[in-house]
Amino acid sequence: MTSGRRSVEEHEQYVGELLAVLRTGSTATVPLSRALHRTLAETISSPLDLPSFRNSQMDGYAVASGTVADTPVTMPVQGVVAAGDAAGVLEPGHALKIMTGAPMPEGADAVVPVEDTTADEAAGTVTIGRGTTPGTYVREAGSDVRTGDRLLTAGTVLAARHIAALAAVGLTDIPVRARPRVAVISTGSELVTAGDVLGPGRIYNSNGPALAASAAANGADVVSVDHCHDDPDEFAKMLSYAVRVADVVFTSGGVSKGDFEVVKDTLEPRGGNFVSVAMQPGGPQGSAVIDGVPVLTFPGNPVSALVSFEVFARPALRAAAGYPPPVTEMLPLATDLTSVAGKRQFLRGVLDGRTVRPAAGRGSHQVAGLAAADVLLDIPADTVSLEAGDLVKVLTL
Amino acid sequence: MTSGRRSVEEHEQYVGELLAVLRTGSTATVPLSRALHRTLAETISSPLDLPSFRNSQMDGYAVASGTVADTPVTMPVQGVVAAGDAAGVLEPGHALKIMTGAPMPEGADAVVPVEDTTADEAAGTVTIGRGTTPGTYVREAGSDVRTGDRLLTAGTVLAARHIAALAAVGLTDIPVRARPRVAVISTGSELVTAGDVLGPGRIYNSNGPALAASAAANGADVVSVDHCHDDPDEFAKMLSYAVRVADVVFTSGGVSKGDFEVVKDTLEPRGGNFVSVAMQPGGPQGSAVIDGVPVLTFPGNPVSALVSFEVFARPALRAAAGYPPPVTEMLPLATDLTSVAGKRQFLRGVLDGRTVRPAAGRGSHQVAGLAAADVLLDIPADTVSLEAGDLVKVLTL
Repeated sequence: MTSGRRSVEEHEQYVGELLAVLRTGSTATVPLSRALHRTLAETISSPLDLPSFRNSQMDGYAVASGTVADTPVTMPVQGVVAAGDAAGVLEPGHALKIMTGAPMPEGADAVVPVEDTTADEAAGTVTIGRGTTPGTYVREAGSDVRTGDRLLTAGTVLAARHIAALAAVGLTDIPVRARPRVAVISTGSELVTAGDVLGPGRIYNSNGPALAASAAANGADVVSVDHCHDDPDEFAKMLSYAVRVADVVFTSGGVSKGDFEVVKDTLEPRGGNFVSVAMQPGGPQGSAVIDGVPVLTFPGNPVSALVSFEVFARPALRAAAGYPPPVTEMLPLATDLTSVAGKRQFLRGVLDGRTVRPAAGRGSHQVAGLAAADVLLDIPADTVSLEAGDLVKVLTL
Repeated sequence: MTSGRRSVEEHEQYVGELLAVLRTGSTATVPLSRALHRTLAETISSPLDLPSFRNSQMDGYAVASGTVADTPVTMPVQGVVAAGDAAGVLEPGHALKIMTGAPMPEGADAVVPVEDTTADEAAGTVTIGRGTTPGTYVREAGSDVRTGDRLLTAGTVLAARHIAALAAVGLTDIPVRARPRVAVISTGSELVTAGDVLGPGRIYNSNGPALAASAAANGADVVSVDHCHDDPDEFAKMLSYAVRVADVVFTSGGVSKGDFEVVKDTLEPRGGNFVSVAMQPGGPQGSAVIDGVPVLTFPGNPVSALVSFEVFARPALRAAAGYPPPVTEMLPLATDLTSVAGKRQFLRGVLDGRTVRPAAGRGSHQVAGLAAADVLLDIPADTVSLEAGDLVKVLTL
């Protein structure tokens, strides 16, 4: 409805409010085998002690330490207890052969490692060569974590070591943040799907695959990727489907000042907000809320669309998935640089050790140039020139 | 067959040679929609010019720049050309309304942005308010990339911007490194699968899920995860299956000095190599090559198994998948630290800003403690103490 000029910061805030609905994200339950890289939705308390019983840390002999004070001492071997056996009772004056992880017998308070012993199998005895003290090579129940203690904190992005801990306490159904569901609609009658014949005046559709990949790389579940011609009926149908299956919709194209702006023309009468943002690339930006679902409409030039995603969509998607925010840092420029006054520039940059230089090609159609870039250089709107050595804000792609 | 004591470095080299077979990895072809985060197996040359035709960078009017030298100038509008239309021919003295991305008509050499014009639709004319120069707002064919030029380099791990470039040149079948196929066998009769009842002396199997997650997180395709009791026949059967379906097999347990070492007892007669490596955790290590497939046998304590994976398996898996090597850096210690002489220690560490401190709990069974760690501190075998402020090698988990 409204339109006008906005700074990047104003549009970030505007879009941030629209996308706040994603952060109230629901919880999904996934099997442990699917939990890698998901974000824990709840703090997990341990349902049991780890270890859940007192056990041996070594292959050796379980003894009462008082009986091996004077060494060497030879004593009868009562038997053998392996990992997985039930705990027994140690007879006074005896040793019990014990394997790593096997339950300590009642009456034993230490394990003598096999290296410090000499067994006489025929006689059924063992000679203990070195004394020990209570608790030596014994793992007490609960010495790793106790029942009810915090095992993992809500918000943890699950790596292999967290999977290990969840498995060790026997959990199978893991509460994780639901991934935000994303639908992508790329518009433009000039677009041809890769694999099809490229007629005169046509170009391959890169925004659909690229926005889908961008969303997936930032924790989203991409539920639909459609291409729409410059046809208001077709767009209205696709949009109606997209808002039914997705939590957020991203479109490309159809938002600038041409005669055939299918996205803008469809969404403006439905309360859409189309503005010019003081940035390059990516000036024409729009948004709407359709049936309660936020729709962000990016410009159609491939570099503009991807930079728009990086600046306006990526932070909210990552927050929704429970991922840490995009990484920015300040790095020194390797060369001088000029920028356009009044517009925040997002220039493609190439890392060179710990310095950065702008890449060749600033055109918003130069998608091959973008592919060759490592980072975006974020140059403030009021900056017109920088010198080699000046620090610039760098956004890791 | 052989056995003995090895330094970590010696075992790294030994295992590195066994796993070198993974690096000769074959090429897989995946559709573009599955190519995110895969590694390009070949350098991609562009099959076409980008843009593939001369087109307009703006919504505006295509003109011959010489005809608008004196402004304002009013000229007849010949028609309109939209993105996706075929290129036409500009009549002398006319302007052609043109949309962003539409093909430039023959005879035009510049685009005047719509903002610098005033149209009179009734009269069928436009008044150009500002002159222009040849090439202004025109994107030349091949100005992004030319047919045959390098688009992406072999070894690139594909991010969204690379997907965009591949889509833009119309590629659908992308040659990527095949993921190394991994089989995991965790051994131990004491192990119970999460969800089942934990009888006396039993523990939940954490190594199976954890090694599978570790492999998946480092570019592998985990094709099989099995649990084996301490039964040589069962192990032989599972191993025979594993080497048929996988490029590398990881086992846990059954490799130390107890009476029932199913992995060692099965593999030693088949040429397996079992050694004691001067490290903590993770001393007992073994390997074998069965039917041409490398088998790495890790100890059964959960922390030992995961640290063994990190040190010996992860670098080779990442290299096979075409991923960059694991990240290490030198960070200052926040506290003093003691270590055991003669063994390289891999201590769990916690980051505290840009310093690091050892986490509580060094036991190789303390899997909850490992889950709470951020990094491993890699303390050389000949170091017995370090002071706060000393630099230590830190391995990011």
